[in-house]
Amino acid sequence: MNTDVTVLGLGPMGSALAGAFVAAGHRTTVWNRTPGKAEPLVRQGAREAGSAGEALAASPLTVVSLSTYEAVREVLHPAACGLAGRTLVNLTSGPPVCAREMDAWAGRAGAAYLDGVVMTTPSGIGSRDFLQLYAGSAAAFERHRETLTALGDATYVGADTALSSVYDTTLLCQMWSTLTGWLHSVVLIGADGPGGNVTATEYTEVANRWMDTVRSFMNTYAPQVDSGEYPSGDFPLDLHRSTMRILAHACELRGADTGMPELFSTLTERAIAAGHGGDSYARLVEFVRREGRPEATLS
Amino acid sequence: MNTDVTVLGLGPMGSALAGAFVAAGHRTTVWNRTPGKAEPLVRQGAREAGSAGEALAASPLTVVSLSTYEAVREVLHPAACGLAGRTLVNLTSGPPVCAREMDAWAGRAGAAYLDGVVMTTPSGIGSRDFLQLYAGSAAAFERHRETLTALGDATYVGADTALSSVYDTTLLCQMWSTLTGWLHSVVLIGADGPGGNVTATEYTEVANRWMDTVRSFMNTYAPQVDSGEYPSGDFPLDLHRSTMRILAHACELRGADTGMPELFSTLTERAIAAGHGGDSYARLVEFVRREGRPEATLS
Repeated sequence: MNTDVTVLGLGPMGSALAGAFVAAGHRTTVWNRTPGKAEPLVRQGAREAGSAGEALAASPLTVVSLSTYEAVREVLHPAACGLAGRTLVNLTSGPPVCAREMDAWAGRAGAAYLDGVVMTTPSGIGSRDFLQLYAGSAAAFERHRETLTALGDATYVGADTALSSVYDTTLLCQMWSTLTGWLHSVVLIGADGPGGNVTATEYTEVANRWMDTVRSFMNTYAPQVDSGEYPSGDFPLDLHRSTMRILAHACELRGADTGMPELFSTLTERAIAAGHGGDSYARLVEFVRREGRPEATLS
Repeated sequence: MNTDVTVLGLGPMGSALAGAFVAAGHRTTVWNRTPGKAEPLVRQGAREAGSAGEALAASPLTVVSLSTYEAVREVLHPAACGLAGRTLVNLTSGPPVCAREMDAWAGRAGAAYLDGVVMTTPSGIGSRDFLQLYAGSAAAFERHRETLTALGDATYVGADTALSSVYDTTLLCQMWSTLTGWLHSVVLIGADGPGGNVTATEYTEVANRWMDTVRSFMNTYAPQVDSGEYPSGDFPLDLHRSTMRILAHACELRGADTGMPELFSTLTERAIAAGHGGDSYARLVEFVRREGRPEATLS
């Protein structure tokens, strides 16, 4: 099987992608709109194409990493005739609707299309520790999975090409929530400066282990959200509320910002007021969803 | 070495604790203020003491799980003379100051003292998957670590007996932040009801893997908080802000509550306005800590 790969766009991300393909032993062709970017990659063993069309022709799989979707269109549209039967993986960041438009365009050009996001910065490319999410043609993903694994932990998320960027935004929301909660915790434990008797490093060692428990809650609650039933076991919202009150008091004492505790306390109070005090924490999903929301749409 | 253990208090938590000790093969003595609670444990092999004093005398280690600190005092104070040379592990929930008072009282009675919290509900007792945190006498913890491991993942957090309950509140803050972020993510991905093309279970499978990356950020940022230096690598606050704006737009489109995104966006904007746009996310700790905070104190 031909595992040759082409990378279009050699900014920091594109260069990292091409470098990871070369390091994994793939015959790698590179091209950049402005010259001079390919040289370090050529020294590592990549081959520089003279044009975008030549680059596309060189491999069954082309990975595109440009600054904007507009740049993607400028580069690809003139080369459309060379795309038939090939696979295009677009890692350029953009809104979900752009991924769908590109998917339709690639389909007309006879190419299989995957829209992807790499959940790391260029320095993390090539490590299996970091997720990459691909949406679009399942067959194309299976065909090139091995090659894409050179970049990281390649994961297929669905046929709708909008999904990769929706996942990106969603996972970042989860990251910011977790990290902001961690920062509140660091202040609460008194590890945010001199005078505390716990360091942030000490706290984080314990917090890391605790996160396994938190993950087990996510895993328990996910099917509850899917089914719309929220049995609480022995940890109902009423019990959450009473411990949240201890937290509010601790924030006051420790001089921690109260925005985060107020956020989940307010959701919890609203759910209890609506008669859900005996339900699990997952019931709050109904209060995170705003009333009058528009039809479900990913665009 | 004598690994006998006594459990005072046989509510749902105390009964779970005693059951885990019995299951792990420890000679277990139990006592409850109101009679009738010991029977199921006696059937499993526990021995019921006729009084709190007799229960304390039966084992070098006594684990106390009562409803309130007031109950702890009512039970223990009359039995103080039997405590010399023994170890008291108090798992009763209460504010940090109560742990310190109980520590001082136990010291006067000649007992070693540990204040503990189990980071689970009764149904999780006995599983190594769940953290228990102990603060107080390091020597007593080492002496009884093996026995305490029957209850879960026994972890020593420091000499100040206030620390276990401070950790408790702090880790719960981290849990609520993470779970609330997860609920927002579930709504954003469209998995919070019919009509979405991703289920919460599908999303959570990906989110679980992503949480490894989030943890690696916590581990990178913890020493930054300790040192007060916040190098960003290739992920500075300026870049966080630009992706947060995409999230705000996605919340609007998807009908997700915007409280959580606004919380970390506001912190990020404040840090950037203060000239920290080139720093890492850990710099936000200075904005979570309120100005004019009181002297660092855990009480």
